[in-house]
Amino acid sequence: MNIPFNHPELNAAEAIYAAQKIAFSPMTFQAVRIAWKRGLLDNLAKNTQGLTPKSLAKNVGMRLYGVRVILESCLSIAVVSFKNEKYFITKIGQIILHDEMTQINFNYNHDVNYLGLFYLEESIDNATPVGLHKTFGSWPTIYPALTSLPEPAQSSWFTFDHYYSDNAFATALPHVFKHQPKTLMDIGGNTGKFSISAANYNDKTQITIIDLPEQLAVAKTNISQAGFSDRINTIPINMLDHSQALPKNYETIWMSQFLDCFGEDDIIAILKRSAQAMSQDSRLFVLETYWDNQQFESAAFCVVNTSPYFTAMANGTSRMYRVSDMLNFMNQAGLEVIEKIEHIGMGHTLLEAKLTQ
Amino acid sequence: MNIPFNHPELNAAEAIYAAQKIAFSPMTFQAVRIAWKRGLLDNLAKNTQGLTPKSLAKNVGMRLYGVRVILESCLSIAVVSFKNEKYFITKIGQIILHDEMTQINFNYNHDVNYLGLFYLEESIDNATPVGLHKTFGSWPTIYPALTSLPEPAQSSWFTFDHYYSDNAFATALPHVFKHQPKTLMDIGGNTGKFSISAANYNDKTQITIIDLPEQLAVAKTNISQAGFSDRINTIPINMLDHSQALPKNYETIWMSQFLDCFGEDDIIAILKRSAQAMSQDSRLFVLETYWDNQQFESAAFCVVNTSPYFTAMANGTSRMYRVSDMLNFMNQAGLEVIEKIEHIGMGHTLLEAKLTQ
Repeated sequence: MNIPFNHPELNAAEAIYAAQKIAFSPMTFQAVRIAWKRGLLDNLAKNTQGLTPKSLAKNVGMRLYGVRVILESCLSIAVVSFKNEKYFITKIGQIILHDEMTQINFNYNHDVNYLGLFYLEESIDNATPVGLHKTFGSWPTIYPALTSLPEPAQSSWFTFDHYYSDNAFATALPHVFKHQPKTLMDIGGNTGKFSISAANYNDKTQITIIDLPEQLAVAKTNISQAGFSDRINTIPINMLDHSQALPKNYETIWMSQFLDCFGEDDIIAILKRSAQAMSQDSRLFVLETYWDNQQFESAAFCVVNTSPYFTAMANGTSRMYRVSDMLNFMNQAGLEVIEKIEHIGMGHTLLEAKLTQ
Repeated sequence: MNIPFNHPELNAAEAIYAAQKIAFSPMTFQAVRIAWKRGLLDNLAKNTQGLTPKSLAKNVGMRLYGVRVILESCLSIAVVSFKNEKYFITKIGQIILHDEMTQINFNYNHDVNYLGLFYLEESIDNATPVGLHKTFGSWPTIYPALTSLPEPAQSSWFTFDHYYSDNAFATALPHVFKHQPKTLMDIGGNTGKFSISAANYNDKTQITIIDLPEQLAVAKTNISQAGFSDRINTIPINMLDHSQALPKNYETIWMSQFLDCFGEDDIIAILKRSAQAMSQDSRLFVLETYWDNQQFESAAFCVVNTSPYFTAMANGTSRMYRVSDMLNFMNQAGLEVIEKIEHIGMGHTLLEAKLTQ
């Protein structure tokens, strides 16, 4: 465990400046995003001798007025620099222009989250995603809404989700298959990405995906296209209905970025239902990102600030947890963690658990 | 002139982190705002030995879940710190808790601007405040809408506007009245704040406020309440209708935070109309904040990031200017700046101009 965010001491002037950077951050967020989207950063990167606003406006086909507003805000947040009436791209600007993760984060936070975050406070108070309701309709949670979200929100959501989980699969698979399980249950399998990877990795294991009917419809198409309809089946179960027992006799249970979609009580209930379906030889693998288990503070920053999405947009009750939280939930569900693989994929931790003796 | 924002060189890891701070800033903006509004910061300031999330949730009457989400995001942006499972307020947190300017900025950016800034790009492309239309209705600009804005947007707008101008009036008045003008025209006088101050400052000057009818209705009430109905009159003129001449024979013309509400061509046209109403002895005083004429970079940051408000919410065409811009506009209108009083009020610059010889 590694609690991040040990911030340096600031003097009063530095603290005042830092506070204004937060207070005006909706402005800088939008200005920087537009500078990237509309080619201002790209054009500055291609003109290393710098560009006047007038030249840049001509090059990117944008009103000179707008180019000035965007550039001046970007200057204030160090995405561009300014010298002798010309603008230049900075290192931060280069990251925004070239780094896939940064762009995925920007798209996700603008297309999915920006408007709904206005209702973060109401979402907390009502324990329901008011931001989702105000922007995308009166769904109980975002999960059944995913396949109906308008573009670009839908693509931005799935790209974000897959980017952060897919990277961990390759490293996780050898651990999951070290016991050569004949059967695997993929709880919250979503569109089937992991199960298809698993079917490719091991040609004997029979796989069952558990999820909501809306997700399973997409999963079935993907499974069929991958040619695995004989080895991957699906069972629609609402994991929030804790009266519904899980099917027994699976040697391995897998949950990837699934438990962070639930509040603490539901996580414990889901883990208990999993434990009830397990035998002494069964293994449960939980792949998650924890904000106190990151190698880089910038990664911890992204993880911890995904929580407000869960509050305002996803369900009003879940968040990104700490490793110690999850060990505590496991313990309460009668499960014992026997192995912890850290720092795989994009800052993931893989926990392997069995029934407590 | 003092171009701010000479940012230090960053290494790649620092640049990646800085980019994520921008990409997730809608989250941190809302989390910090709620921590302040809902008393989390105040309660942490009163408990200098630190508080667990559980104690804090009890003290402020908020769901423990929400307190965790808010605190963890605040931790990531250094508004609180965390040690031995307890949270503490930081210096940035103290600024947000106690500094009036910071709070006015937060309220203005949340209540007035946050939702509309989603449409910054469309506002640039269409040269019209699409953010205003989407959030407050199809007004041509925000100015006739001001007295109809819903609360808390209306209060947050006027508080922001007055906070940044009222502070400069006391310092500006001796300069404006050094020539003992018998008549003064207050162009864009809004709700009458400056004219009433001026009437109090000098008991002889006859004052005329020029503005839109909606603003003048409020101004008249304020003037009457201040007992100045005999010395302050009002004339409704749309300053964007450049065919409308201004009344002549005023010894002094005053414009406070007015020209930043217009695009470059309109500013030049308004200055030309002013010049046409002036004699050789008339004086024009322009009080503005310029982002390249600030003593502190944090002030320049606030000024420059007010421009996106003008784009998305106010009019789609104006912005916060540089001193050199304004000198250029004056020159094009046949006006010559004869005195420049810097760093008055909240980073204001007072320009005194006369007709070019």
